[in-house]
Amino acid sequence: MQRVGFILKVKKELLEEYKGTHKNVWPEMQQALRDAGWTNYTLFAREDGTLFGYLETEDFEKSLEAMDGLDVNTRWQASMVPYFEQLEGRRPDEALYQIEEIFHLD
Amino acid sequence: MQRVGFILKVKKELLEEYKGTHKNVWPEMQQALRDAGWTNYTLFAREDGTLFGYLETEDFEKSLEAMDGLDVNTRWQASMVPYFEQLEGRRPDEALYQIEEIFHLD
Repeated sequence: MQRVGFILKVKKELLEEYKGTHKNVWPEMQQALRDAGWTNYTLFAREDGTLFGYLETEDFEKSLEAMDGLDVNTRWQASMVPYFEQLEGRRPDEALYQIEEIFHLD
Repeated sequence: MQRVGFILKVKKELLEEYKGTHKNVWPEMQQALRDAGWTNYTLFAREDGTLFGYLETEDFEKSLEAMDGLDVNTRWQASMVPYFEQLEGRRPDEALYQIEEIFHLD
């Protein structure tokens, strides 16, 4: 099981709206993440728009590949593009920046 | 059970040394965290020194209070002070900045 931490950056002026979209994540998008192997996934936000994601999965790379081909993910990611900074032409799920685990306590 | 995300900032030039200290967190400090109720605790670091912590606990405030009076915590926090930015006179565990959970998927 991998523990994954990642960072993304939402435009500060759109953070409240972004948080609103996450009160109603499409059920089929939630199911797609589950099917791809994401468990215990939590998204946190700092007031400046920095997002931190934490999840547990068997194989993070494989889970991203599994999501990659799904129509629901294509539609979800497209709907999220306007909220993000620094995408440089990528989808949000292609731009997420994985950070290094340096300590763990069970 | 609360899911807690927090951020701290290590001086970039001391990040590698800080990571080294976390390969050998004192066993009695690890036990103190467990006794205080911290479970599934992971610390992640970005190259710029931003630390992100994730943990699960019954009551985060109470866990901090429980740690507060412990000699081992006082010594550990004192040993960590030189690594951090923006402490403004506080111990690292007093300066940790809790961020908001905006989404969760079990």
